[in-house]
Amino acid sequence: MSSATARIDLNADLGEGVGDDAAMLGIVTSANVACGFHAGTPADLLATCRAAVAAGVRIGAQVSYPDRSGFGRRFMEMTTSDLIADLVYQIGALDALARSVGGAVTYVKPHGALYNTVVHHAQQADAVVTAVRNVHPGLAVMGLPGSEILSRASRAGLDTITEAFADRAYTPEGTLVPRGTNGAVLSDSDEIARRVVELVTTGRIGAIDGTRIGVDARSVCLHGDTPGAVEHARAVRAALTAAGIDIGTTPA
Amino acid sequence: MSSATARIDLNADLGEGVGDDAAMLGIVTSANVACGFHAGTPADLLATCRAAVAAGVRIGAQVSYPDRSGFGRRFMEMTTSDLIADLVYQIGALDALARSVGGAVTYVKPHGALYNTVVHHAQQADAVVTAVRNVHPGLAVMGLPGSEILSRASRAGLDTITEAFADRAYTPEGTLVPRGTNGAVLSDSDEIARRVVELVTTGRIGAIDGTRIGVDARSVCLHGDTPGAVEHARAVRAALTAAGIDIGTTPA
Amino acid sequence: MSSATARIDLNADLGEGVGDDAAMLGIVTSANVACGFHAGTPADLLATCRAAVAAGVRIGAQVSYPDRSGFGRRFMEMTTSDLIADLVYQIGALDALARSVGGAVTYVKPHGALYNTVVHHAQQADAVVTAVRNVHPGLAVMGLPGSEILSRASRAGLDTITEAFADRAYTPEGTLVPRGTNGAVLSDSDEIARRVVELVTTGRIGAIDGTRIGVDARSVCLHGDTPGAVEHARAVRAALTAAGIDIGTTPA
Amino acid sequence: MSSATARIDLNADLGEGVGDDAAMLGIVTSANVACGFHAGTPADLLATCRAAVAAGVRIGAQVSYPDRSGFGRRFMEMTTSDLIADLVYQIGALDALARSVGGAVTYVKPHGALYNTVVHHAQQADAVVTAVRNVHPGLAVMGLPGSEILSRASRAGLDTITEAFADRAYTPEGTLVPRGTNGAVLSDSDEIARRVVELVTTGRIGAIDGTRIGVDARSVCLHGDTPGAVEHARAVRAALTAAGIDIGTTPA
Repeated sequence: MSSATARIDLNADLGEGVGDDAAMLGIVTSANVACGFHAGTPADLLATCRAAVAAGVRIGAQVSYPDRSGFGRRFMEMTTSDLIADLVYQIGALDALARSVGGAVTYVKPHGALYNTVVHHAQQADAVVTAVRNVHPGLAVMGLPGSEILSRASRAGLDTITEAFADRAYTPEGTLVPRGTNGAVLSDSDEIARRVVELVTTGRIGAIDGTRIGVDARSVCLHGDTPGAVEHARAVRAALTAAGIDIGTTPA
Repeated sequence: MSSATARIDLNADLGEGVGDDAAMLGIVTSANVACGFHAGTPADLLATCRAAVAAGVRIGAQVSYPDRSGFGRRFMEMTTSDLIADLVYQIGALDALARSVGGAVTYVKPHGALYNTVVHHAQQADAVVTAVRNVHPGLAVMGLPGSEILSRASRAGLDTITEAFADRAYTPEGTLVPRGTNGAVLSDSDEIARRVVELVTTGRIGAIDGTRIGVDARSVCLHGDTPGAVEHARAVRAALTAAGIDIGTTPA
Repeated sequence: MSSATARIDLNADLGEGVGDDAAMLGIVTSANVACGFHAGTPADLLATCRAAVAAGVRIGAQVSYPDRSGFGRRFMEMTTSDLIADLVYQIGALDALARSVGGAVTYVKPHGALYNTVVHHAQQADAVVTAVRNVHPGLAVMGLPGSEILSRASRAGLDTITEAFADRAYTPEGTLVPRGTNGAVLSDSDEIARRVVELVTTGRIGAIDGTRIGVDARSVCLHGDTPGAVEHARAVRAALTAAGIDIGTTPA
Repeated sequence: MSSATARIDLNADLGEGVGDDAAMLGIVTSANVACGFHAGTPADLLATCRAAVAAGVRIGAQVSYPDRSGFGRRFMEMTTSDLIADLVYQIGALDALARSVGGAVTYVKPHGALYNTVVHHAQQADAVVTAVRNVHPGLAVMGLPGSEILSRASRAGLDTITEAFADRAYTPEGTLVPRGTNGAVLSDSDEIARRVVELVTTGRIGAIDGTRIGVDARSVCLHGDTPGAVEHARAVRAALTAAGIDIGTTPA
């Protein structure tokens, strides 16, 4: 990516009733809004959509397993038809809320355990792709570079948005170091910001063993609900701006 | 209504997991499909939409209070903004499911306690009207003739669908005789069918005291979940056909 | 089992809002009552407990994953502490309902996907055992003979109730022929009844390949929600009675 | 109340996933723990019970309408039998969780809209009393002095716990000044603490018009989720201690 065209999208999970949504909407350019299956009441989601529209932030549907009590963090076996129905329902519900305040859902990002599952689980990845396409083939899918979900979405003709994680360490193979491992989550704002700038300007990032690896990312995920989250997010945005990098969504 | 133009819509509540949906879809021309707040999983609702599309039956969103355990039959006090958000969410969810199988939601009918409340409750009636218009001003609202909801929907520029009840007795004032009162619910298929034909051809129906009263109805509601429901519904359809009355939706 | 002591418990799933609970309560001696996590409102469950008490039928808690929309039929990954909390909650809720009408929960039977999972899944089987013991060590656990859950329950000092399935075919290894396989579900009342009598009097049953295998069962599960279910159940009870076998719960 | 016997209970709402539960458990002597119908997963509730037991804090069941998306703050019309079933279910569930960690539910406090409704609504007040008694007649009921619920609980032989609100202004008639009215909620820690000491030592409190009115209270409610809540709570406890007042539950 040449510096002339350097541009990156910043995304965060919102509408979950945790974290400082208002602050994050002043920093990100894409809002992954919960759809009520892992968090959020319709009134919460409508308020989040209204705030996103006011802030000029793009709205994505953060779809989940139907697992309210587990915050969508637990794997569920689901038939293809059940999963498709649940996802179409969620995307349609959030899109109607978004449209009622002058916005629209323009992409879909699986949440929690569903996000992790569709990295490798062909049947569920296909179900997500089918659901998205059934709602509208113009919707994009956000996910991990190299994942089943993104390769299947591409083959189905959907736009895909690869994402990197600002505050997570990478293995030399380009996967995330699992939470719980020493050094898996970064906590220094300056380091986080520096890594994001490196990633955007060079397409490469330092892995946990010191090697530099290529990471394909059209968007960077900023967490909004961890200690220091807003501070990290502000540092990332400031560093990108200082490096002359545009912040915003990129065309397909 | 002159006999030359006599035409009536028949509607029933479907997707609630009770009653014989398949049989009813062969009889009615409008399906009030549950939206998951009083009954129905997304997979149920998708299957119901698919069957309605296959049967050529129009799909309406049967929106409810968020009261799963009470089947939407209990009044809830709700702020205008909470109620709007809940309704937009439901209509959007069902519409996305319907569209994914080649259909679309074209009208909205409140369910249960919400149906009864918006006959007279100005604040909640306004919330329903606002929600429907916020999803799409082309959506119609189905309800009781003379109700707050329909007069407010009309004033807001929405199409309204008045409905009569095939198997319910009317007071001389044109309201329904409350369930539990002697004679409130009719159980004779022939009588039910005869009354519907009378209503459609003359615009009048016999009240419980024997007087004949005018009832404005573009649609007749057939219950699908009571004993003999399917038999009553078939009798109504057969009698209308025998009387040379078209069965189908009417233009606004 | 000598004919002098032949005695068998009959159990069925109730309170799920499907099937003919009233008829089944006249046939079985143990009622596996739903706890609201896969089916049943508190009002449903209370009514079921009241009817079970009136019929002199023992009450068990049919605990489930928190999966209302999937009727508890989908595997969920759950931490031990989350699963324990969900199960203690369900058992406690149902026991309070049962006690309020003069009954009590005396055993626990996992439902649906949880039932199948704890046949082999050590972590979840342990969680169920811990939850049961944490509510009361006098509670029994009902499950498949040879399952992880029953062997762990026994080691923990809990009484166990092995069960056989009246209308299911068995493999030569003593496991159930999976649903969907040809001949997996029996539909002839006479054959079902004959097999149950054979099982109770001889401790053996014919497998799908014709061999006779030993099946350890203190209870026989009768389905209440399949076509002909009540008829099958009545045939089983009649055949047991004709064979001079006592029907009722057996001491630990 | 003579100074020799001055003693007061302090209670707060916990397990709702808002506020600083750990801090509040170091201050109060009674924990009103949510039961999952307005807030709280079983895992949350179990953790709250465990912490309450560790802190030596008495556990009450804070029962609610089945209104998760509205946080139990919306009036619901409910039949007596539905409301009883919902309440028995909640109390039983929480009691089982509490017992599994060495505690027990010893009183019941309605939450939110149910709390306000049973101040005056005879049918629902009776349902709460019946539900509590049906679980165990040794359970106490916490509520507003002079309310329907407490008078009906007394007549039914249940122990009652009157409560006052530390941070709320009172009318000259002894009712709470409605939220939204100027001065309805106090925000000065010193003033809040001074009023509680006055109430406990004299049985009287200053109303919003300056008159001093009698308020009967065996417990004082401290909010845990408002700005400054923990600070106010600490100030109240410190002032009571400085005034030589015992803090703890009082016998019936």
